[in-house]
Amino acid sequence: MLRIGMLTSGGDCQALNAALRGVYKCVVNNAKEPVEFYGFEDGYKGLIYGKFRILTGADFKGILTRGGTILGTSRCPFKTIRVPDEDGIDKVEAMKQTYYKLQLDCLVMGGGNGSTKTANLLSEEGLNVVTLPKTIDNDLWGTEMTFGFQSAVDIATTAIDQIHTTASSHGRVFIVEIMGHKVGWLPLNAGIAGGADVILLPEIPYDINKVVEAIEGRDKGGSRFTIIAVAEGAISKEDAKLSKKEYRKKLENYPYPSVSYEIADQIQKMTGREVRVTVPGHTQRGGGPNAYDRVFASRVGAEAGKLILRKEFGYMIGYKDREMVKVPLKEVAGKLKTVDPNASIIKEAKLLGISFGD
Amino acid sequence: MLRIGMLTSGGDCQALNAALRGVYKCVVNNAKEPVEFYGFEDGYKGLIYGKFRILTGADFKGILTRGGTILGTSRCPFKTIRVPDEDGIDKVEAMKQTYYKLQLDCLVMGGGNGSTKTANLLSEEGLNVVTLPKTIDNDLWGTEMTFGFQSAVDIATTAIDQIHTTASSHGRVFIVEIMGHKVGWLPLNAGIAGGADVILLPEIPYDINKVVEAIEGRDKGGSRFTIIAVAEGAISKEDAKLSKKEYRKKLENYPYPSVSYEIADQIQKMTGREVRVTVPGHTQRGGGPNAYDRVFASRVGAEAGKLILRKEFGYMIGYKDREMVKVPLKEVAGKLKTVDPNASIIKEAKLLGISFGD
Amino acid sequence: MLRIGMLTSGGDCQALNAALRGVYKCVVNNAKEPVEFYGFEDGYKGLIYGKFRILTGADFKGILTRGGTILGTSRCPFKTIRVPDEDGIDKVEAMKQTYYKLQLDCLVMGGGNGSTKTANLLSEEGLNVVTLPKTIDNDLWGTEMTFGFQSAVDIATTAIDQIHTTASSHGRVFIVEIMGHKVGWLPLNAGIAGGADVILLPEIPYDINKVVEAIEGRDKGGSRFTIIAVAEGAISKEDAKLSKKEYRKKLENYPYPSVSYEIADQIQKMTGREVRVTVPGHTQRGGGPNAYDRVFASRVGAEAGKLILRKEFGYMIGYKDREMVKVPLKEVAGKLKTVDPNASIIKEAKLLGISFGD
Amino acid sequence: MLRIGMLTSGGDCQALNAALRGVYKCVVNNAKEPVEFYGFEDGYKGLIYGKFRILTGADFKGILTRGGTILGTSRCPFKTIRVPDEDGIDKVEAMKQTYYKLQLDCLVMGGGNGSTKTANLLSEEGLNVVTLPKTIDNDLWGTEMTFGFQSAVDIATTAIDQIHTTASSHGRVFIVEIMGHKVGWLPLNAGIAGGADVILLPEIPYDINKVVEAIEGRDKGGSRFTIIAVAEGAISKEDAKLSKKEYRKKLENYPYPSVSYEIADQIQKMTGREVRVTVPGHTQRGGGPNAYDRVFASRVGAEAGKLILRKEFGYMIGYKDREMVKVPLKEVAGKLKTVDPNASIIKEAKLLGISFGD
Repeated sequence: MLRIGMLTSGGDCQALNAALRGVYKCVVNNAKEPVEFYGFEDGYKGLIYGKFRILTGADFKGILTRGGTILGTSRCPFKTIRVPDEDGIDKVEAMKQTYYKLQLDCLVMGGGNGSTKTANLLSEEGLNVVTLPKTIDNDLWGTEMTFGFQSAVDIATTAIDQIHTTASSHGRVFIVEIMGHKVGWLPLNAGIAGGADVILLPEIPYDINKVVEAIEGRDKGGSRFTIIAVAEGAISKEDAKLSKKEYRKKLENYPYPSVSYEIADQIQKMTGREVRVTVPGHTQRGGGPNAYDRVFASRVGAEAGKLILRKEFGYMIGYKDREMVKVPLKEVAGKLKTVDPNASIIKEAKLLGISFGD
Repeated sequence: MLRIGMLTSGGDCQALNAALRGVYKCVVNNAKEPVEFYGFEDGYKGLIYGKFRILTGADFKGILTRGGTILGTSRCPFKTIRVPDEDGIDKVEAMKQTYYKLQLDCLVMGGGNGSTKTANLLSEEGLNVVTLPKTIDNDLWGTEMTFGFQSAVDIATTAIDQIHTTASSHGRVFIVEIMGHKVGWLPLNAGIAGGADVILLPEIPYDINKVVEAIEGRDKGGSRFTIIAVAEGAISKEDAKLSKKEYRKKLENYPYPSVSYEIADQIQKMTGREVRVTVPGHTQRGGGPNAYDRVFASRVGAEAGKLILRKEFGYMIGYKDREMVKVPLKEVAGKLKTVDPNASIIKEAKLLGISFGD
Repeated sequence: MLRIGMLTSGGDCQALNAALRGVYKCVVNNAKEPVEFYGFEDGYKGLIYGKFRILTGADFKGILTRGGTILGTSRCPFKTIRVPDEDGIDKVEAMKQTYYKLQLDCLVMGGGNGSTKTANLLSEEGLNVVTLPKTIDNDLWGTEMTFGFQSAVDIATTAIDQIHTTASSHGRVFIVEIMGHKVGWLPLNAGIAGGADVILLPEIPYDINKVVEAIEGRDKGGSRFTIIAVAEGAISKEDAKLSKKEYRKKLENYPYPSVSYEIADQIQKMTGREVRVTVPGHTQRGGGPNAYDRVFASRVGAEAGKLILRKEFGYMIGYKDREMVKVPLKEVAGKLKTVDPNASIIKEAKLLGISFGD
Repeated sequence: MLRIGMLTSGGDCQALNAALRGVYKCVVNNAKEPVEFYGFEDGYKGLIYGKFRILTGADFKGILTRGGTILGTSRCPFKTIRVPDEDGIDKVEAMKQTYYKLQLDCLVMGGGNGSTKTANLLSEEGLNVVTLPKTIDNDLWGTEMTFGFQSAVDIATTAIDQIHTTASSHGRVFIVEIMGHKVGWLPLNAGIAGGADVILLPEIPYDINKVVEAIEGRDKGGSRFTIIAVAEGAISKEDAKLSKKEYRKKLENYPYPSVSYEIADQIQKMTGREVRVTVPGHTQRGGGPNAYDRVFASRVGAEAGKLILRKEFGYMIGYKDREMVKVPLKEVAGKLKTVDPNASIIKEAKLLGISFGD
């Protein structure tokens, strides 16, 4: 008997279900012994508190195209790892207890950065863990791609497309704020795809004067409107120079809902032009996966299933040189794959006339 | 020679171009004399300041599916009609002058409530005017439907769909704020289509206790999440009792970006549950028209063209009993088609278990 | 105890599940006694052979947006009503037996023309029946709209849009064959929405010379391509004159897969131009319902639920003058709502320059 | 003065316009001299017969999202290269004459396999050529990806999704025929993304008995329906053994519109099950590009522009190891990038239980 625990952790995203289905199908089709699947509820919480349900074939039917996660999810539960929280529970010990009590052979976890760090911890503690690279931010170290990303690019691009017609009709400056607190892959790709004129990323601090220059350059060229794709974590050159403490202090009295509104305010003051902000927000991680993500996540699931059948653990499934690969969790944990300001894609975008405000 | 002026006014929306194309095609295909089209820039502004371009067949090619407006648009320029503004111009006189100077035979205007009021004024002043019922709000009096509406319903519904998966994965209460300051057709339809559990409309003041009841009812029924579709102009029973003056005063020190955030705050305090707000905003009026709006706007355009050829003026094209009809502008101007709290669709929604917070 | 049987019959379409969910929600939320739902498998077959399953709340969860039917469906099983088929079973008697054996209080049937005829028969036999107007063809008598229709229009329109770019790039004549054997609502609406230059419907026999004229007219006007939307049941003026017998004979040796290929062949021979045919086929009834159909089907479901609670039977839910109404089944059965060649929408399309080949 | 000729050749596809816009923007933004763009009409034909128009900024506005090609296209005009055709014109010489007469500095060509072969020929003849990797088949040698491909995958996947609901409702076997005469990337990816149970590719000859086995396996597992994604060029094991001559002879008297219908017929006979075929056909290359293709094609355009500015010619822009690269045309010409039956993606698909009929 093979007993496999499954959980999804962190912000949900498209194709999580497709990946879980892939693991299930691969294992069930190819295992030489009976298999039992334990689905933990709401991420690591389910593992901590022993909340799970037995998953059968019916649970995995028709979920290739379904958004969200059939298991539920929650943000990773601990900030200070290993220290008991208010409830006095050592969460790592609790997870180990559940794992051993249920006599699990392994744990499959679909998650992003924080969740993969926790997975690595569990792996170091001796549990058999395989992880699935899930995040719309595409910021996981050790893999060129994550599932959720391309679907989120589709949604953010559609938002820019929709804003495009209205910006053009009204001759306005429009800011579309796109998810990405620390990493800009999503706003970068959606910005290029949506034909944004300016793209502001966490990795490339902006000078508001350069942004205004770009707007005025378009005015001169006869384009009555400007689209600015702003990452949630876009940061000005001045703010980038602040220490963490100084920056946190600035945010304490920050009069704007987000950086986009600050930028809008500045542009309005500097140019006298009407500026509007749109925030697609959580829609970016919602809805069903696109075709790309379904293929990608299905492949991830198959490879994860293969590792389980071979009893190789302690890996995240990654994508390198057009092949699915296994990446040791300890190489992934705690690192971030950011946008290199000198990457080819940035240079190409600049050749096309896109301003990054730098 | 037939000289036709065209302009689009107010917030842009889907299928404006389809309607203009319809007018053009109908007139050009059926007129017995040569025709010239004058496209005024950015709504009534173009008419006031005499900014226009001659439109040819090329301008109307391929625009059936294109969002926005090829003419540009702007909000209707006067609050106090007829009184000269800061620039000392009597705008009505300026528009008449442009009209007569260009020897126009008529003016085709695509617009919503405010813009149609102005069109009626021009009609009363002796200009030949035909208007096209354009608004995502579907709140024009005298017509059962307006173009833009169904496309906006599609977009708002997609936003709710996307929020659905993420709300369900995280077990959260989610508010989606949908356009509609005074009239709730859009949030009502998108709410039903998106499977919202609660819908709050300007026409049906809400009691926050009833909203919380609905959330708790779902909790008891085993549904971990609740979707609330909130119109921009949703209003509580208390606020609905305030005089205009008192309400304006309340808004002066209003600590929330919009009513959705106030509701979110209240729910959070009353239930201890995590509540998130998403505001699709201007995306709702952007992008290309859906199939419904393309058919509808094409028919509107054909009927407007017919009126022009028959030299019947002073009408808005409307839709009644599955037929396109002409509605006297003076019957339309200044009225609003709101949602009747006792309408069948409201009763049906309630039968389905949707709460309106009343 | 209220016992409600449910089945879906005929070609599946979008929003069937939404309508069933509506019935369920309305009844469960408002009934004053316990309710049991019996879901018959694969249409009337399930009723005939007594194949069903008890449906619970879980069956209706998340199906508002899901295409197809959770019950399965099949074409209506009898051509010659009441006469026992090869298997010796009197199917009407068999259905009555199942109904009475299960002590059903009523039967809810979602179906189109043939299926509604059968429902009327069962009603005349004394069963309590309510039907839901389901068809992408929008050809049910007694209702202005059916669910499935607007979703199918969306899909067929998208197909024309996609063909548009390729036709334009290659300067080709393209035929898109759209569902509609006897009735042309779908090709008519998709044709207008997709900007088709020629639309051929079952209700308006075409003259191939007029079709060629339209193509050549476009050539002269500088448009290098022509899009023709052809209903599956489009018919030439000559064929329309044939008796049923003669027509059937013609079809016996018909060398084309469908009428579109015959038309393509004729155009190719008459003009020397390259003509391509695309047949979106069954995709038109597939996928999830659009926002319009979800609202419409939900309302239908609520009204059907209301009738059940009021014990009013023998009706189809229909749509008239923007209200849901109950239409006696005997008024609906055996009739077809076709496109009137003199309908306003046809006249408007002609004003826009669309040729119907007549 | 820099004079740049542009043409698009072969079947049109999504993102061609995006790539042309990329070239234009890159060159205009970064050239140190004035630039003139010559757009040749309908592919190489325009170059042969000297049909072109001067392209300005207006031509490239708003085309990032537009499907098709603003230049028109046609299949590559010669089968036997260099030999004068019926019209007595040596087409290669004619193209050179146009090129030199217009004093072009280079030629930018967007095209697939055949067109790139011709581009290489022109390059060998001394013309300065850069090509853009355009094909929905993704079968160009020397690049991991081509634009058009991911958009076509989206469309084919949507078709399978739509068929899925109807297949499931009716419990039928459904074949979806997907573009790909010689190469199966598109049906492979769409098949996995759409959840097809069987995928038949040109590269993996099928045994009809294995296909039937897969269908019956699903029946036993309780799945009432089966989806088969069939490449246009799918081939049975027997046919694969035929010599070219024998195969051509077989096709002469082939009673089916395409291989899918033959397969459908066989399955029907072998299993007695109802089998339906759907052919999305040309829709797969139509409509606007998805976000992925817009980014990809924009990057391709920028890199092509860079080569032009650096006066490096004789290259196709390709994609390798997540970077845009220049690939010598002579390495690309005449080769085909096919699906390796032992590729990881095939193995992964098999692990998931997908049958390739082998």
